[in-house]
Formats: sequence, structure tokens, C-alpha cells
Amino acid sequence: MSAIATDIDQICINTIRGLSMDAVQKANSGHPGLPMGAAAMAYALWTKHLRHNPKNPHWFNRDRFILSAGHGSMLLYSLLFLTGYDLSLDDIKQFRQWRSKTPGHPENTHTPGVEMATGPLGQGFATSVGYAIAEKYLSSYFNRPGHDIIDHFTLGICSDGDLMEGITNEAASLAGHLKLGKIIFLYDNNHISLDGPTSDTFTEDVVARFRALDWHVIEVNGMDVKEVDDAITVAKLHTEAPTLISAETIIGFGSPNRQNTHLAHGEALGPDEVKLAKQTLGIPLEPDFYVPDEALKFYREAVPKGAEEEADWDKKFAAYATEFPELAKELRALIKGDFGQAWIDALPVIDDKIATRASSGKVLNAIAASLPTMIAGSADLSGSTIITIKDDGQFQADNPTGRTMAYGVREHAMIAAVNGINLHGACKAYSGTFLVFSDYCRGSIRLAAIMELPSIYVFTHDSIGLGEDGPTHQPIEHLMALRAIPNLDVFRPADGHETAVGWKVALQSKKTPTLMVLTRQAVPNLTPSDVKNHPAEKGAYVLREASSKAKCQVVGTGSEVSVAVEAAEALEKEGIPTRVISMPSWLLFSRQSEEYQKSVFPKGLPTVSVEAGTTLGWAKYAQAQVGIDHFGASAPGPLLMEKFGITAAHVVELAKGLLAE
Amino acid sequence: MSAIATDIDQICINTIRGLSMDAVQKANSGHPGLPMGAAAMAYALWTKHLRHNPKNPHWFNRDRFILSAGHGSMLLYSLLFLTGYDLSLDDIKQFRQWRSKTPGHPENTHTPGVEMATGPLGQGFATSVGYAIAEKYLSSYFNRPGHDIIDHFTLGICSDGDLMEGITNEAASLAGHLKLGKIIFLYDNNHISLDGPTSDTFTEDVVARFRALDWHVIEVNGMDVKEVDDAITVAKLHTEAPTLISAETIIGFGSPNRQNTHLAHGEALGPDEVKLAKQTLGIPLEPDFYVPDEALKFYREAVPKGAEEEADWDKKFAAYATEFPELAKELRALIKGDFGQAWIDALPVIDDKIATRASSGKVLNAIAASLPTMIAGSADLSGSTIITIKDDGQFQADNPTGRTMAYGVREHAMIAAVNGINLHGACKAYSGTFLVFSDYCRGSIRLAAIMELPSIYVFTHDSIGLGEDGPTHQPIEHLMALRAIPNLDVFRPADGHETAVGWKVALQSKKTPTLMVLTRQAVPNLTPSDVKNHPAEKGAYVLREASSKAKCQVVGTGSEVSVAVEAAEALEKEGIPTRVISMPSWLLFSRQSEEYQKSVFPKGLPTVSVEAGTTLGWAKYAQAQVGIDHFGASAPGPLLMEKFGITAAHVVELAKGLLAE
Repeated sequence: MSAIATDIDQICINTIRGLSMDAVQKANSGHPGLPMGAAAMAYALWTKHLRHNPKNPHWFNRDRFILSAGHGSMLLYSLLFLTGYDLSLDDIKQFRQWRSKTPGHPENTHTPGVEMATGPLGQGFATSVGYAIAEKYLSSYFNRPGHDIIDHFTLGICSDGDLMEGITNEAASLAGHLKLGKIIFLYDNNHISLDGPTSDTFTEDVVARFRALDWHVIEVNGMDVKEVDDAITVAKLHTEAPTLISAETIIGFGSPNRQNTHLAHGEALGPDEVKLAKQTLGIPLEPDFYVPDEALKFYREAVPKGAEEEADWDKKFAAYATEFPELAKELRALIKGDFGQAWIDALPVIDDKIATRASSGKVLNAIAASLPTMIAGSADLSGSTIITIKDDGQFQADNPTGRTMAYGVREHAMIAAVNGINLHGACKAYSGTFLVFSDYCRGSIRLAAIMELPSIYVFTHDSIGLGEDGPTHQPIEHLMALRAIPNLDVFRPADGHETAVGWKVALQSKKTPTLMVLTRQAVPNLTPSDVKNHPAEKGAYVLREASSKAKCQVVGTGSEVSVAVEAAEALEKEGIPTRVISMPSWLLFSRQSEEYQKSVFPKGLPTVSVEAGTTLGWAKYAQAQVGIDHFGASAPGPLLMEKFGITAAHVVELAKGLLAE
Repeated sequence: MSAIATDIDQICINTIRGLSMDAVQKANSGHPGLPMGAAAMAYALWTKHLRHNPKNPHWFNRDRFILSAGHGSMLLYSLLFLTGYDLSLDDIKQFRQWRSKTPGHPENTHTPGVEMATGPLGQGFATSVGYAIAEKYLSSYFNRPGHDIIDHFTLGICSDGDLMEGITNEAASLAGHLKLGKIIFLYDNNHISLDGPTSDTFTEDVVARFRALDWHVIEVNGMDVKEVDDAITVAKLHTEAPTLISAETIIGFGSPNRQNTHLAHGEALGPDEVKLAKQTLGIPLEPDFYVPDEALKFYREAVPKGAEEEADWDKKFAAYATEFPELAKELRALIKGDFGQAWIDALPVIDDKIATRASSGKVLNAIAASLPTMIAGSADLSGSTIITIKDDGQFQADNPTGRTMAYGVREHAMIAAVNGINLHGACKAYSGTFLVFSDYCRGSIRLAAIMELPSIYVFTHDSIGLGEDGPTHQPIEHLMALRAIPNLDVFRPADGHETAVGWKVALQSKKTPTLMVLTRQAVPNLTPSDVKNHPAEKGAYVLREASSKAKCQVVGTGSEVSVAVEAAEALEKEGIPTRVISMPSWLLFSRQSEEYQKSVFPKGLPTVSVEAGTTLGWAKYAQAQVGIDHFGASAPGPLLMEKFGITAAHVVELAKGLLAE
């Protein structure tokens, strides 16, 4: 094909190429190759298929578009600017600069129209599965015959790198199993990765793999707008399986010396090559960031078209609301993020000596009826993590109103799916697996924290207390390693009451994801029973005052709060007045006033911490620490607690040591 | 088929089933289903194919056997005991008890004959790829026509769960690409996972997927010894591709009420069901842990057979040594773990102001000739991480003496492969990717630390200093989150000299994996140039003494050591004598004498830390901390350092604050 623009399609496509080259060149940093190679197929998708309203990026029934290959961000920024989102040409000129709307990789918190942060490969693809689950669940729950109120596609572009990542295979296998037919991914099959040709690393038959995963696969020339257009049309009609459109493209298309090589991938082309590329593509050399009037005019048709689409939907919704006023009211509230208050009133008071995972299961089933779009799920550990919502069955292709997901042994894809469901909106999704397996899904947990997304992740079996499974299954460093992630609430409740509080905080959170970290073993009830107005919401609090002016205090979390209490009682018996602090959440505590924080950890008051995990980090709050700085072992949990010194006696010893100093 | 034992095969197979049931029952914890279902195929593999010497589990040319589905540990323990390893029936009776040789999941550090720790699903499968890479590299390097000194298979058993994990797909795609024909995996295809039937979660066509990944796939009845035996024979002959033998089995076979259900998976059968199962299988009810004499006799033929196989190999080796004395000497030393001293003498002194990733590249290429079995590799970031060994090309199917692996965008499988190469022995493998992507491979990093395996992982782009790629690519919590893993040396050098020291420590390590954490940006030379005798080996040291008795000190790591130096100079100018501590490794420092530790961090000396990452943890060493407790941003690196306060001025401010207290 000729690269020179001869028709409006080519002019529009080359506009993306020019903007992308120039932006990367100006920043002298970034990835020009993907936008230049994928411009044609993205153009086909965005101008001929994507249902969206640039003036209202939050329109609920829009198609979701995910650029999984986030390094090609200039492709997305070009499209957002051109189709009329709140992103200017000046913003594009600020590509990769301080506080611009055009950071190196797309960030939903920075840029209108960016659905989610992408960049770490595989995340976008896997998160898309969550979007599609939400669409399927919500449409099953809300739609009525003749009223397809929720009815949109989840579309995306992914790269070789995305498809090499394990998370993508997990997600694709899950999506195929669930027959999520409204997922359509364009695979930018350009045979080049950052280091060189994919013949060095990636010679599998991707098409056959995706067919084995029960996907519908179409192969096209990704440089041909018509072929891509037709393929998407076919994909949209094929709703029995997700579709992968494997599109052959040429990375860095138009750059005479770099196209089709890895030199086009991850760095600016250089001024000379930009010039040559513009000449090749028929783009005027001046000005930089050239946008032909006819291209802008064509792209901007998205604005009236989007307004019309949303207005049509509003009409549909009005008709729906007339016929189903209650459902419409419910959906309207959910779209606003209003999940009501009924579930808070339903929070139970759990006074049994049971594991916090069991308390959690009770909480969830007590509130589930009040939160009909709360979606559970686990990675083949529903029995152990007790996350199942009992009444509605499993979510499956033939039971889309089920709301406990069976994610299979796919921790990473599970967390990404939970994120996708929550990003979609109108749902509250949570996951369930063992704490030690947080190692398998940190990529997606971190991304939720970056995206300011209030996902909820249940992690049970939270210490050596799990016992016989041994060191590969016993978290040691995980609590602290997760607390280290910014904007992530690691909530480790001490008992059933704090567990209910944790769920309350997690479900009310607007911008912070929450880890509910729960025990396998039973714990006594120690904290106040008023779960609606509980000091645990402050992250840390004085659980027990000393009998007289405190000479020392013990701070514990989760199952070790009872160790702290026992130690304090022993110290009191020996005449040492001792306070006990329960500290379920470091993050929530850090958000309290300095005054409050000082009241819990007064300067100069000797403090011992006790937690069945690494002591790393505890020096911030305690001068002496009881913890475990080595791997666990296979033996019954109570014996391990004893052997590894997670005991009241050990706390007492360290407290006395501090007092003797 | 009848379950009742009527021939020696069935008696032997049922012995495994009986031991497994009894051990799990006695522990009242564990997974009976896999050993009972997979006993027949494991029997076929172990008695008819596996080349091993129970009396010398370290025989170098043994076949490696990996139980990727580590929860089925009783299968492996049964086989180790029965075939004559140093594991007694009493050890089996101690299943899952304190300090036994039979922990809940296999651990190489506890049990002779266990090649690696397994349990977290996918790890065994992915690590096997590393074993096979090592075998292929070493055989290409050492073997000579007529002298196949290194020539063994890597065999394993994996489960549904293994195959659902993303890491497995990454590893399988890589193994298929590399045509690692000496990998043979039996897939225990029992259609049941912990939560229920795989029809709930895992309905993909596994056979077609593996064929798409360029595997040789055979389907058999896994309960039929002959079929499995024949399939393994075929697999061994098919050396052009790895083989997956998809073996249909019945989980919990013999348990009349639990077999073929998830109830057989993850808990003891209960005394009544054990009794019924024994009756069904024709196992005497008394004694528990029954081992028929004829079964033991048959299995124990492995002892003389193994001795003979090793003796044959010794003879082959002697002939090889006669003809190729230098090679034989080299291999003998490597097998002992002796990599010589020449590489230490070759360590360069790097006096340029360059990035530590660049220094690392210089170190590696300076020593590579002295370490011919050092194997490099990166996850599609060889250019950015500078890990390539320049002279020997890429390791590929048609170039097995290349020693830079192109792992593709498969971080998790890469780390597992590095572990496998190092577990194999006679090699030193290291990986390369960005620090932020440690999130994608923590599962395998942690496993190396548990296994006491001195793998080396290069992680570059170690802070916001990487600049424009933005928050998804900027590590914040990663340094500390990795330091929290027990027995993991996170080494972050300040300059070229410390980088050489880091490599020296890493390559000399016997039981501790090392992360080499390196900058993208250039750093000045600040530390002593004698890399063979450098204080950085102690983890932390006084880099600069104060001009007179120190009133405070600043501790930094990596690129922030220069900030610490600059701050100290500013404080000195203001008349405040200030020391500077360089602290490349917390772990190495923690292993020094208490006296030394106190000399570096004297009690009462006000200390400020500076590190471009989370401040969490630094309270242990410093009363005031300069760091970053939020996500990064997309902008040039130096600007970010300024905006986020990673500056000498900020350190000075905090130091003065401490002194004013």
C-alpha cells in the first residue's frame, strides 16, 4: 500500500502518526512505533465502531476501550484529542512532562477518557475481562425484554508483550470459559518487541492458542481499514465467545529506516528520521504537531454522534424507568456510586470465637441482600476463604446472575478482573485467596492503588497460624510488603467486630483499595461490639487502658491482639501498668490527626509490637518487636507460634527489657 | 479396571495410596487425592524410566524429577522412601510435623531427593524449564562426539492448577520456542480442583493449547501403567519438542465415597473412609502405613540399579577425562560448585560517572570469559538492563552454546528458569528486568530464598530516577518490600565500585539469592576502588568520617549516596560535623557482629536516611527519613527528585530538625 495520504482515511491515520512522532520526539522519550503501526486499526475502531461520548467520558453505557499496550499512549492521546475529549493539542505537546494530562503511560486519574492505567503488560487485557463480567452481570440483573439498558462492548488493543505475559493467558482462559462474547481485542501483531524480532522469543501459534482457549479468532491485515472494520463488525455479531482480531501491522510505519525493526519501538526516531517519515507519509514538515483541518473535522464528528448516542440511551432509559421505576432508581443510584445505607444497618455483631475468615463470611452474607451488585469470587479457594455469597450461585455463562465468581487457580487474573468490575462501575467486587499468594498478583493490586480504585481483596491464612502447609504457604513478609504500597489499606482485624468494621471501611472507600487480611484460626472477641461506630476505623486505638498511668504498652494486629492482651495482663500482674493498642490498619492510622496519632503512641512510652510476620517496619511504632524474620515451617499452627516466640511471655520479656533500659 | 491388587504393579501402586491416605489421616491435614490418583503414573515413571541413584541424590547426570503439584507431597515422599532414599517410614509417620523430613509441601532443604520446593502452583513446571536449559547448555558445552557426559531428562507431574497459572503458560511458550525436548511432564488430568470440578473454571482445550505452544502432546489413560510407560518411551524419543502427557486420572482413586470429587482433594478422608478405601483397594487394615514386603523389594531394586547407572556414568566420565582432561577438570570443579578465582581477579575498577546498570554490564563482560557457565538473560529488556554477555550470542534451539537468554516478556517464567538453571548445578544464571516488574515474579524470588538458592536477579530502573515512564514503571515500595523477604540480599550499589562488589558477593553466595538493584541514571564515583576488599561487603559502612566528632550522620543507598554526601558537605560548611554511611545491603549488614553494627549506627547519634523509595522500615536506622511515600509521576528524573524532595537540602533540613530536638 502507499503510505501517502490520498483519502480522508489515510489523512486521518497519518495525523495520528505525525502527532505521535512529534510528541515522542519533543519529549525525547517514549514509544513511537506502536502508534504509527496501529494507527489504521485504531482509526477503524474509533471512527467506525466505538460508541462513546467525548463530552461525557463517564456515560455509563459507553463502550470501554482499553489500550493494554500502554506504552503506545500517544495513540490513545491522539485519538482523545482528535475526537474531542478534554485534551488539547497543547496537552499533547506536554507529553511525558510534569503534571501534564499526557503522562508516559495512560493514567485514568490524569486524563479524561482514559478508562484505566496501563503500561505493565497484560494488565489491560486482564482487566478487560472484569469490565465484561460487570457488563454481563449488570445487563442480566437490570435489562428487561425490550429494554437493553446495559449493552456495550469492551474493546482493546494488545501487543506481543501482552500476549507473552502469564496474566493474559489466565484472563483469556477465564474469558473463554465464561463465553464473554462482548470482549473484542485487536492484537497488534507486528512481530517486533523491544529487544528485537519476536522470532527470538515468541514463535507459538497465537491464533491456535486462543482458539484452544475458546476464543473466536479473526486474522486480518491491520494496515487495511476495511479489513479491520469488517472484522470488528463480525466480532460484534459473534457474541458466544470473546474475539481476538490478530492484525498484522508494521511497527513504526512510515519511518523509512526504522519501520519493522525494534529501533522504532522504544525511543524517539530522531529529528532526521522524523523528517524522512513525514516526507514518506506526505505530512507537511511544518508545523510540528500538524493536524489537517479535514482530519480534525472528520474526527470531531464523534462529538455530535456521541451526544446523540447518549441522548438515545437517555430516551431508552426514560422508557425503562416508566416501566420499571424501582430498577431504574436502583441503577441510577449505583451509577452515581451510591450503594445505599441498608447494608450498613445489616452489619452483624459477631460474638463467636471463630476465625476472622469465618466472621468475614458471616458479614458478607448478612449484607449481600442489601448489595445486589456486590460480586464475590475466589481463585479456587472459596471453601477456605469463605467468600461465597450463598444465595445466588456461581456466575457462569449460563447463570449470569450468579454472583460468586469461580476464577480458577488464576490469582493474577482474578485481581485484574476484580479491578475491571469495579472500574466498570455500579458494582462492588472482591476476591479471595491466601495471603501468601498476594505475591502472584501484586501487579494488579498496585495498579488499583495507582488508579485510586476501591477494590477489595480478601486474603486469608494470614500467618504461620495456618500451620501444616509450611513455609511456601506461610506469609512472613507479606503484611509489611503490602503496607509499603502507597494508597493500599491493609486491614487486619483482631476479631469478628473489627472484621465487620474492615468491611464497612472497604465498602465505603472511594479511592483506596482494601486488603482484608484474615486468619485461618479462631480468635477470641476482644474489641467493642458497636461495629458502626468503632475505633478500628481510625486504624489504631487504645483497646485497653492500663490500670494506672501506663509504664508501657503493647501494640498488636489481627490474631496477635490477643497475645498483646495476654501480655498486658501478665505485666499488670507484675505491677507494670500496661496499655494495649489494636492496630488493624497502618494506612487509616496515618490519615488521622497528628494529635490523635500521638495519643495512641505517646512519645517516650515504651512500646512492644507483636505481629506474626516480619519485624521490619515496626521500629516506627515500637522500640522492641516480637515477630518472625525467617521463613515458617510445617507443623501445627499453635506449636509454630510457640516455637517462633509469638507469645505473651516473649512480649513480657521484651517489655521488661525496655523498662530496664 | 479393578482396584484390588492382583499383580506386583498394582501392589506397588496401592502401597503409595495406602501410605498417602494414612499419612494425611495421621496429620489430619494434607492432600490425599493427588497421590491416590497419580500413583499409577508416578509408579510407571519412577520404576520404568527415571534414572536416579537413591543413595546419591546429587549424582550429577540423574534425571530431575519435579512434583509441580507440591500439595501431593505424599506421592513424592512415598516414592523416596520406597525406592531407598534417606527417608524412613518413621519420617513418613511424621508427615507435616515440626522438623520432620516430610513437611506439608516438598522442601529441598529438608529432604534428600527433593530437587526443589514446590507448592505454589506453576513454580515447579516453570523451574523445570531452567533445568532443561542448563542440561542443554552444559551438554553443548561439555559433550564431545561419543561422549554424552551430560544427558538427562527433566520430568515432572503437574496438575490442573499448575496449568491454570499464568507462569506455566509463559514457561511452556518459552520451552516450546526453545525446543527443549528433554522436558516431559505428566499432566494429572483428573478434572477436579480444590473447589470442585474443573468444568466450573477450566474448560479450555489444554491439548490444543500446548500444541499451539509447540509442545509434543500425548493423551493417555493415566491409571494404566502400560499406557503411561509407552507414552514416556515415545516422549523420550521425541527430542525436538517438550512433551506433555495428558493423563486422565481419578482423584482419590479407591476412596468409594470421595474419589472423583473435590472432597478427596485437600483434607484427610476420615478414619471410616480410609478403612473403606483400603478394603476397596485390597490393602490390609492393619497395620497403618502398611508396606508389603514384595512392594518394598520391588521398589528397592532402584538402589542397585541406581548405583550401577552412576557407576556406568563414572566409567564414561573416566574415558572422557582421558580424552578431554581440561574439560573434565572444569566440569568436575563446577559440579562441586567451584567456579574458580579467575573471575575475581578479572573484576574491573570502574571509574566513570555512569549508571550502575552500565557498570554492571562492564563487570559482567569483564568476568564472563572466566565464568563460561554463567548464563545471562532478560525479559525483553536486554538493551535497558545491560545484561548481555557480548561474545557468545543468544541461547536458541539452533545455538545452544549461546549464553544470553531471550526470555521474552515473561518475567515470572524468567525468574523460575534462572532458579532452575542454578538448581541444576554447574551454572550461574542471572536475569534482567526493571525493578517495578519484581511485582510480576515475587513468587519465584521468594521460592529461591526458601530454597537457599543463590540465584542472581538484576533489576534496573530502580527509582523515580527513571523519569518519564511514570508511576506504573517507577518503584516506590519495591526495595523495602523485597528487603522484607527473609534470606534475600537486596544489593543497591552507590557507584561502579560497589556494583563490582555486589557481583562478587552475589556470585560467591552459597545459600542466599541476590537482587542487584541498579540505576538507569548516571551516578558519581564515591566509594573506595579496591573492589576485592571493599567495605560494601559488610552491607553498610562509614563512607566518610566527619571532620571532627560527628554530631549527626546521613545514611543513603544507591543513587542517593551522592545526595547524602552532598548533604554532609553542606552540614559541615555550617559547622555541623557529619558522617556519611553507604548501605548497599540491609541483609549483609544484619549478618555483621553487633559491635560492628553499633559502630556504624552508634546509639544516640542523630541519623537521617535518604532513599528514593518508601520511608517504611528506615526508622530502624534513622530518626528522620527522606523518601517517597506516594506514587511517582511522569517527568524527567532529575525534576522528580527535586519535586519529591530527594535532595541534599531536604536532608539538611531534617538533620537540623533532629539536632534541634
